[in-house]
Amino acid sequence: MTEMQHIVLARRPEGAPVAEDFRLETAPLPVPGDGEVLVKLSHFSLDPYMRGRMDDAKSYAAPVPLNGTMEAGGVGEVIASNHPGFAPGDIAFGMFGWASHGCLPGKELRKLDPAHGPVTAALGVLGMPGFTGWAGLMEYGRPKAGETLVVAAATGPVGSMVGQLAKSLGLRVIGIAGGAEKCQMAVETFGFDACLDHRAYDDAKALRAALADACPDGIDIYFENVAGKVLEAVLPLMNVGGRIPLCGMIAWYNAGALGANQGGEVDQLPKLWRTILVKRLHVHGFIITDHFHRFGDFLKQVGPKVAGGDIRFVEDVAVGLENAPAAFMAMLGGGNTGKQIVAL
Amino acid sequence: MTEMQHIVLARRPEGAPVAEDFRLETAPLPVPGDGEVLVKLSHFSLDPYMRGRMDDAKSYAAPVPLNGTMEAGGVGEVIASNHPGFAPGDIAFGMFGWASHGCLPGKELRKLDPAHGPVTAALGVLGMPGFTGWAGLMEYGRPKAGETLVVAAATGPVGSMVGQLAKSLGLRVIGIAGGAEKCQMAVETFGFDACLDHRAYDDAKALRAALADACPDGIDIYFENVAGKVLEAVLPLMNVGGRIPLCGMIAWYNAGALGANQGGEVDQLPKLWRTILVKRLHVHGFIITDHFHRFGDFLKQVGPKVAGGDIRFVEDVAVGLENAPAAFMAMLGGGNTGKQIVAL
Repeated sequence: MTEMQHIVLARRPEGAPVAEDFRLETAPLPVPGDGEVLVKLSHFSLDPYMRGRMDDAKSYAAPVPLNGTMEAGGVGEVIASNHPGFAPGDIAFGMFGWASHGCLPGKELRKLDPAHGPVTAALGVLGMPGFTGWAGLMEYGRPKAGETLVVAAATGPVGSMVGQLAKSLGLRVIGIAGGAEKCQMAVETFGFDACLDHRAYDDAKALRAALADACPDGIDIYFENVAGKVLEAVLPLMNVGGRIPLCGMIAWYNAGALGANQGGEVDQLPKLWRTILVKRLHVHGFIITDHFHRFGDFLKQVGPKVAGGDIRFVEDVAVGLENAPAAFMAMLGGGNTGKQIVAL
Repeated sequence: MTEMQHIVLARRPEGAPVAEDFRLETAPLPVPGDGEVLVKLSHFSLDPYMRGRMDDAKSYAAPVPLNGTMEAGGVGEVIASNHPGFAPGDIAFGMFGWASHGCLPGKELRKLDPAHGPVTAALGVLGMPGFTGWAGLMEYGRPKAGETLVVAAATGPVGSMVGQLAKSLGLRVIGIAGGAEKCQMAVETFGFDACLDHRAYDDAKALRAALADACPDGIDIYFENVAGKVLEAVLPLMNVGGRIPLCGMIAWYNAGALGANQGGEVDQLPKLWRTILVKRLHVHGFIITDHFHRFGDFLKQVGPKVAGGDIRFVEDVAVGLENAPAAFMAMLGGGNTGKQIVAL
């Protein structure tokens, strides 16, 4: 084995990515330098944030350069190491990208213990998405027993973590998801009190009416990861003193420069601003990379619950590096069910 | 004296209030019942929030009923009392409305000690507006020395309190006000580092460029009381982790149903939402009536600073009840300088 494969950003998408925005390339297998570790990946993660990295817009992280490898966290087996902390055969997590192999400084990698469960958990329920749900809910949601929480993408790795944690804390939890199958999964697998299929409602007004029925005491926490129609439906139902941890807005990710003019011809900002004032809401934007100093606490708290089956997770696995772009494009449209992973 | 005068809401305004929306009426002087106190007002307060009370829209407080007395806090001398805590000659503050006299239960009144400074301070710097600035800044702004704060309506009773407190805590403070005279006052009287005249800039973009010059290290706290063009100018300049205490949006108060479609034809909400996410902002809506349990702390902390001249205040006094509507309408357009008061 002297070669590796990876997928590069062939061009910047306009709107929703298409196949031509990606290109599968072959490259020489890297030789690890001082302190570096070479890993043969078994799986990598596909997450909505990667859509943002494809745009050349100023954001909290640098965009993927044109012809650069698409960004992703992955797991795999160490096949060569110049770092004392890693030996061949170890299983490691790192930001290797959409690739068959990766070579990174050992200090940027995290060793996984396969005894703690499937290694893919490090990409989802016990990785960045699960950690995002935990940190956002606990730090900014400030959940209290008896309150009502709403989260969309309910069967995704963030939404399902938020919902299950909130249920375990005694909240009423209402999910929103795309399609009857996911809604059933939110209730039966993840224990949500109810889950609404946003596709069954023509507009925000219809969705709001259904949400109002499902939330007779209003909404205290809206964990925001989708925006768009769901945000519009939720806002008027927020209770006084409500909290909105805001970590994503997938409904708007495909609009080119994120956030530019995706709405209608009516400026909704004054209405939002008024709602925040009148309802005394607390809106907290957060980026999970700011919180990694608490990752150890997260693993300690949530790891045993995952191992014990108290927190469940669902994965959607695409097989083969060449199928990553299609899986990614489908995910942005809600075509996946559970944490989207690529297996190599 | 057997009669009193008061101003009632004659009809609900469409957009900016006009003279015909108000009516001066004469009524018999009330006779205080059990536990009630009759006060002859010397001054009452005009504040932007009163515009919201004129609309029949669901909000955090009930609207003024048609033909009901316009709401206001006022101060004056007790002329009759059936409450053991008040005697004729005492000076009291209460929500008497736009009126020459008022009769309220003694338990709803606060006795003022004229030795502590002019009684009008209870309407501004040591009343609801000053308290709004203090509570919003300290609880939600979380100011730290070396940071940069921006506040508009800089010479108003909220903005001038926020700016002076922030200066005393070691922040760089940039004001925004309407007109060169107010800008000069913000710097010379209130000690702001700089103050921009929003009228000197054609649009949000031009104002933003000037703000960027005045805030070379970005903006950490935007104390929001105006919205509109200022909000649009400020948002892109917010630093990561910035805070926005949000207590008002006077730029949008005259649009009938507050917050409905005052913006342009582009939906600015996605851009705002993106900024909150990318910059990890914390937006806190608050209504000062939720915080009155801390009013004693406020008086204890800020009262001595006002008495000692460390916190200064400016009042704009209209004379005569009949001139209250004109003064109120002017204030909504920024025609006042300092705390707007009506003297009787």
